[in-house]
Amino acid sequence: MVEINSCFQHLKRTYIFSLIEEKIETLCKKISPNQMINLSIGDIVLPLIPSAVQAMSQAVLKMGTSSGLKGYGPSNGYLFLREAIANTYFTALQITPDEIFISDGINTDITNILDLFSPSCSVGVPDPTYPAYLDAAILSGRTKIMTLPCLEANQFHPYPPSKACDLIYLCSPNNPTGVAMNRDLLTTWVNYALKHKAVIFFDHAYEAFISSVDVPRSIFEIPGAKECAIEFRSFSKSAGFTGLRCSYTVLPKALKAHYEDQEISLHALWHRRQAAKSNGVAYPIQKGALATLQPQGQSEVKTQIHSYLTQAKALKQGLIKLGLDCYGGIDSPYIWVKTPKGKTSWEFFDELLIKCHLISIPGVGFGKYGEGFVRFSAFTTPDKIDLTLKRINQL
Amino acid sequence: MVEINSCFQHLKRTYIFSLIEEKIETLCKKISPNQMINLSIGDIVLPLIPSAVQAMSQAVLKMGTSSGLKGYGPSNGYLFLREAIANTYFTALQITPDEIFISDGINTDITNILDLFSPSCSVGVPDPTYPAYLDAAILSGRTKIMTLPCLEANQFHPYPPSKACDLIYLCSPNNPTGVAMNRDLLTTWVNYALKHKAVIFFDHAYEAFISSVDVPRSIFEIPGAKECAIEFRSFSKSAGFTGLRCSYTVLPKALKAHYEDQEISLHALWHRRQAAKSNGVAYPIQKGALATLQPQGQSEVKTQIHSYLTQAKALKQGLIKLGLDCYGGIDSPYIWVKTPKGKTSWEFFDELLIKCHLISIPGVGFGKYGEGFVRFSAFTTPDKIDLTLKRINQL
Repeated sequence: MVEINSCFQHLKRTYIFSLIEEKIETLCKKISPNQMINLSIGDIVLPLIPSAVQAMSQAVLKMGTSSGLKGYGPSNGYLFLREAIANTYFTALQITPDEIFISDGINTDITNILDLFSPSCSVGVPDPTYPAYLDAAILSGRTKIMTLPCLEANQFHPYPPSKACDLIYLCSPNNPTGVAMNRDLLTTWVNYALKHKAVIFFDHAYEAFISSVDVPRSIFEIPGAKECAIEFRSFSKSAGFTGLRCSYTVLPKALKAHYEDQEISLHALWHRRQAAKSNGVAYPIQKGALATLQPQGQSEVKTQIHSYLTQAKALKQGLIKLGLDCYGGIDSPYIWVKTPKGKTSWEFFDELLIKCHLISIPGVGFGKYGEGFVRFSAFTTPDKIDLTLKRINQL
Repeated sequence: MVEINSCFQHLKRTYIFSLIEEKIETLCKKISPNQMINLSIGDIVLPLIPSAVQAMSQAVLKMGTSSGLKGYGPSNGYLFLREAIANTYFTALQITPDEIFISDGINTDITNILDLFSPSCSVGVPDPTYPAYLDAAILSGRTKIMTLPCLEANQFHPYPPSKACDLIYLCSPNNPTGVAMNRDLLTTWVNYALKHKAVIFFDHAYEAFISSVDVPRSIFEIPGAKECAIEFRSFSKSAGFTGLRCSYTVLPKALKAHYEDQEISLHALWHRRQAAKSNGVAYPIQKGALATLQPQGQSEVKTQIHSYLTQAKALKQGLIKLGLDCYGGIDSPYIWVKTPKGKTSWEFFDELLIKCHLISIPGVGFGKYGEGFVRFSAFTTPDKIDLTLKRINQL
């Protein structure tokens, strides 16, 4: 009988979400689901902006005509979208449209990117962070996985390890801690990568939420980053596209790796991989994404981001007033809340659920260094923020 | 410096499409592109059916409302679509909706499926066939790759090898040869797979084109196939969705592989892989796909398939009348044309291009056993079929 890929046996089964669901179900036998407030969701709640609705509707109608039909598109995305991205975000940084690859999600690309590298490469993964990096590293058969702890003493930032690491995942603004690396820290990481000839996978899903002035809006603002970094960005959180699946990867042509004594362009390799394994993103979706980059669309998405950030601020300030230690929430929709009185993540989660009917996420779900924290999300409505604070106050 | 995945160095660079483009560009300096007839395209040409246009437009409008917004969907696809697929195609075969996984393309899934298996597994790849299988096998680091020749003497069908092979790619109706395996041959393959405890990856992209009565509409019609096969199907060719990206993989729960002395469900493994590496398909696209399965949509897509098949028939009969040996074109939009007078694929391609201004694809582009053939596609309009036959007649 054919044998499975044994890497699957090394995946840590994350029972966390099923465990959360079980607990909610138990509670639902006693109270109505309407009484619960869900602050666990890492997903947008505001409707798709009118500009995107209009552009997508037009594109769909166009596909129903002989002259407007679009069949297979380029595996790296339509030039109209790649040009608009380059013009909107990268003019000063001299990133060209052919260094941008459209895809159906950061999750897809940031896990597939490991395909380009030798199985013997070591992989650095922050803790706590988005769990897909570790899953992907394990599934790809990597055995040299280095944990990069994100500790309270370091404002929850990962710092370069003393040893050399080949491939480094960084997520900033980070999920779940909500903190964003400033220019100095990113410079430290870029210099480390240049010194060790490593490659940084920079997950910038929450870029649109950055409001601090010393936090770069792209890793390519840091000198030398084009020789050592790949940036992953998305329309999911920046333009409310989680249900539409459109992201992009910025892979500079200057980025090289070696094979025997040759230098190989990772850009060419990624092109080849994507051409072999992907057929690109739906035409109407790319048209919708384009609309979010145009002046009217930009104004509409900025209004949405502003309201999420306003909610994050209100929630954070309210929680601090109630005596809780809170982090993040400035450059991010996420607030990282320290459990009071040394409770574990799960203990505080249970207390919030049972006494306040409030759903959070236990920090340990994002890695062992998440113990002692829970994540609150500001992807909700202002009335829920008020209610959350009232209920915790009563507690 | 970080090292690349050396498998990329073993990929055969397929210069074929760039070579074809170069030749066309050269000719375009002498004649107008309008004078050329492109029969090389493996892509639909008829507009998206009205039912799908309407359903997608409605879904997009809905996403612009608070009550209709859809964020992240299930990584295996919405239940409404999986249920409709099960009801449309699999009621008699007792495939359930949870054995169906929605994805953005067969190409994605049929290459990613290798992730589930041990790197030491041998992989059988037909020749000539769709080139992505071989690329994926090489990129996944498989070194035991067995070619399954599709020879004229065997009506271009691959036959089970004498040795055991763990993982077997089959494409039927095949691209490029246009021939479809009948019940007997598929039974032979299923029995081979059961005997050797192998797994068949059955690419059924062209299922909608099957018109022969002895050709199964699913591999699961063959007894035992649920214990040894995964079927990959798509809305691309069956419903004109190449520009919309929606396909599905049927992975029965009965399918097992081993890890040490345990039997492992491949269904559970694929679920885990998809949850870790994918966020599903856009909601409006899945709504569009659903519409193609409803009565009005089915009637519309069947009309389109009928016109492609009518064109394939006319082209094939015309070419035979002109003295060419032709295969396929009955259960497929593709016609596999033997080069006259022992010419090579490229010689005949050049002659058709230069003398008839007709673009085909040299058979060698699909594997070495494609030498001596070219592929014609009926994804075109009736006037182009007439013109093609006139020009070849003059030749």
